[in-house]
Amino acid sequence: VLNRLATIVRSQHVLTEPDERAGYEIDWTRRYRGDALAVVRPGSTAEVAQVLSVCNEGSIAVVPQGGNTGLVGGSVPRPDRAAVVLSLARLDECSIDAQHGEAVVGGGVILESFQEASRASGWDLAVDLAARGSCTIGGMVATNAGGEHVVRYGPMAQQLIGVEAVLADGTVVGHVPALRKDNTGYHWAGILAGSEGTLGVVTRAHLRLVAVLPARVVALLGLPDLEAALAVTGKLRRTLPELNAVEVCFADGIDLVRSVTGMPAPLSQRAPVNVVVETAGDDVDLLVDRLGGAVAAAGGMLDSAIASTEADRARLWRYREAHTEAISTLGVPHKLDVSIPFDRMLEFERRVRALVSDAGAQLVLFGHLGDGNLHVNVLGPSADDARIDDAVLDLAASLGGSISAEHGIGIAKRSAFARTRSTAELDAMRAIKRALDPRAILNPGVLFS
Amino acid sequence: VLNRLATIVRSQHVLTEPDERAGYEIDWTRRYRGDALAVVRPGSTAEVAQVLSVCNEGSIAVVPQGGNTGLVGGSVPRPDRAAVVLSLARLDECSIDAQHGEAVVGGGVILESFQEASRASGWDLAVDLAARGSCTIGGMVATNAGGEHVVRYGPMAQQLIGVEAVLADGTVVGHVPALRKDNTGYHWAGILAGSEGTLGVVTRAHLRLVAVLPARVVALLGLPDLEAALAVTGKLRRTLPELNAVEVCFADGIDLVRSVTGMPAPLSQRAPVNVVVETAGDDVDLLVDRLGGAVAAAGGMLDSAIASTEADRARLWRYREAHTEAISTLGVPHKLDVSIPFDRMLEFERRVRALVSDAGAQLVLFGHLGDGNLHVNVLGPSADDARIDDAVLDLAASLGGSISAEHGIGIAKRSAFARTRSTAELDAMRAIKRALDPRAILNPGVLFS
Repeated sequence: VLNRLATIVRSQHVLTEPDERAGYEIDWTRRYRGDALAVVRPGSTAEVAQVLSVCNEGSIAVVPQGGNTGLVGGSVPRPDRAAVVLSLARLDECSIDAQHGEAVVGGGVILESFQEASRASGWDLAVDLAARGSCTIGGMVATNAGGEHVVRYGPMAQQLIGVEAVLADGTVVGHVPALRKDNTGYHWAGILAGSEGTLGVVTRAHLRLVAVLPARVVALLGLPDLEAALAVTGKLRRTLPELNAVEVCFADGIDLVRSVTGMPAPLSQRAPVNVVVETAGDDVDLLVDRLGGAVAAAGGMLDSAIASTEADRARLWRYREAHTEAISTLGVPHKLDVSIPFDRMLEFERRVRALVSDAGAQLVLFGHLGDGNLHVNVLGPSADDARIDDAVLDLAASLGGSISAEHGIGIAKRSAFARTRSTAELDAMRAIKRALDPRAILNPGVLFS
Repeated sequence: VLNRLATIVRSQHVLTEPDERAGYEIDWTRRYRGDALAVVRPGSTAEVAQVLSVCNEGSIAVVPQGGNTGLVGGSVPRPDRAAVVLSLARLDECSIDAQHGEAVVGGGVILESFQEASRASGWDLAVDLAARGSCTIGGMVATNAGGEHVVRYGPMAQQLIGVEAVLADGTVVGHVPALRKDNTGYHWAGILAGSEGTLGVVTRAHLRLVAVLPARVVALLGLPDLEAALAVTGKLRRTLPELNAVEVCFADGIDLVRSVTGMPAPLSQRAPVNVVVETAGDDVDLLVDRLGGAVAAAGGMLDSAIASTEADRARLWRYREAHTEAISTLGVPHKLDVSIPFDRMLEFERRVRALVSDAGAQLVLFGHLGDGNLHVNVLGPSADDARIDDAVLDLAASLGGSISAEHGIGIAKRSAFARTRSTAELDAMRAIKRALDPRAILNPGVLFS
């Protein structure tokens, strides 16, 4: 089989030596690793199709890999089953239509490279991530990546005009360029976005871009509780179409950030809940007027600060963004990524605080308030003690929430996924999987055990 | 079986008399009809599940029906196979979250009723259609409805936070309320939007709403050709995030509208291509300034007019919107609904004009320029002569376009669908269909013969 693969992609693109394979066999969290039979690096959609066809005939497991920046173990071989790692890195086509704000992009293009090219022509991809220096467009589609601007533009699935993908048996489906309106049969973009490499391999994406907005304004709002924060968020959402981000952190997190960074208090009084709001447009004075007016009209705040210069904006953002770094000074946290219906968030906050406190552990919460997405950081339990993790996820699910807002299921969240969906629904998902990948070669073990 | 269905939904909701069934057996185009074994009107998701389970056991065909406003024959029984019509009209739940701009809506809720309720609370569904008085939210999801504001907000698929649906065997999948971020397994909203009732029945949708924007400004731009129109569209798209619609019509269409309505010439000179642009926001003076400035900066126009009062806006819109009515005075047109990649639109226009002219027929083109979506109206050939229709669709497909931008496939476009996709891709779609509906009871004959 390796010989056949070498014929398809040329032998220099079939990596079999341990030192060549090593970087593809372990993910960047260093928690997940497995053995690669080989790393295969096809250079075109046609080569991806031939590689998959050969692997499918031989029932050889294939793990598609983009930037290998996933957090749930879905991008490297499983410990219990060696697999061919299909690296899409060479699918590096990038064609930007600066007239209409669209791009056709190979699955292996790194987000940051794409951003440089698109921004130079006045356009931007609406989804941006901290992993931008490594993560790839194909991986972002496969995992339906989110980030801080979902409140305005939606996640990756909503940036897709269309996709081209290869199914397990080598069938090429979808096509790019795609069409902004195209109601002809099942929508591959909708089927494949977020499917975590289990249904097909995204070889090219046709992306809708958004205009680069040169002006930004940031406000930090101090609020008495989460209820008031949600009320203000709703008012801003209705009155400010230019709302670009609505993030939340809490007094204990701000204290921690201040103790680590030495920053001064952000507001005149210590607020239990802190909301960072960003708007973006093309006229900074207009944005300041509008955001200032909307904040004043919303009411219910203990205090607020507004920033329009780059330095001031960065300073306000830092209270929220330094959370990850500040938390890491306390130890290695258990990180959970849940979303909660807006009308159950107060209850979730109260109960998760009680749950963690009762276990004698420490909790730091922050997240994307505009999307109902909270990052739950728990400090105290050892790395292999998942009891609090399970309890937090079950609490989220019991309130109608999601056990994985952005990160996906991979292999890390399979058990929580399985116990928070009905057997019949899981069976229906498995039926789709079997229909498109009857030999179960694509990313086996991801989503379903 | 009818007795079992009557036990589930109560006998008054199983319609078997010919006069009761008649309205459900023929669609509003009057081109499609078939026999209903019965019309079943479940009142809840649980009843839908029980009805489908019974029909699945008996391998009885089921045609889901919302407002019965489809244009491609997908909402009534096929002429060659009697079916149970599953009317979702009684799924009329409507719960609007005015704080966060979301709504949970039963599949049977009529768009116009929903608009009244949501607008009263300051929010709106971004998708609007001429069939608003009859079409239902469930039908709009199943057909991925589009309309004039896709250029800003995307089609129905992009308004979905999530769906609840029932599969052929009665399995309930998805859940509402859903989450704005939820990467757990396959995304039912992405799978079901646009699947035309062949994979599942949408019982409830959780919709993202957009703020009602009270101010609107409209401009009519006269341009020398489609190339100039596309260039201006691109510039406006980049500089005006408030761009709400970009529509196109041509000199012959404007002449026809003027002859039918008696309206005066819209501009100082007769322009080969006319583009209607709308922006929406909360301050009309600001919108006028911005749209006027963007139009002046774009250049390349023969003339332009801008309107900010309601009467003036309606007058400019009427040149575009009166096309359908004006065309109908010439006879019953063959209506085709294609989308074309932007960089092939000039070629499409040239070739479709030649094609129709060579056949001795008359062509009127108009459409949603911002989405690459053209409505092709052909007058002359008799109703059952599909030769020009086929030639136009094949031309669109040969240029990488879609043979059905908004209307879907239904039974009307099956042959064009089959001949413009690869056999392997169609087989993959059929595999998904078989996986979720192994007895092929859901809307059989739609999409696939």
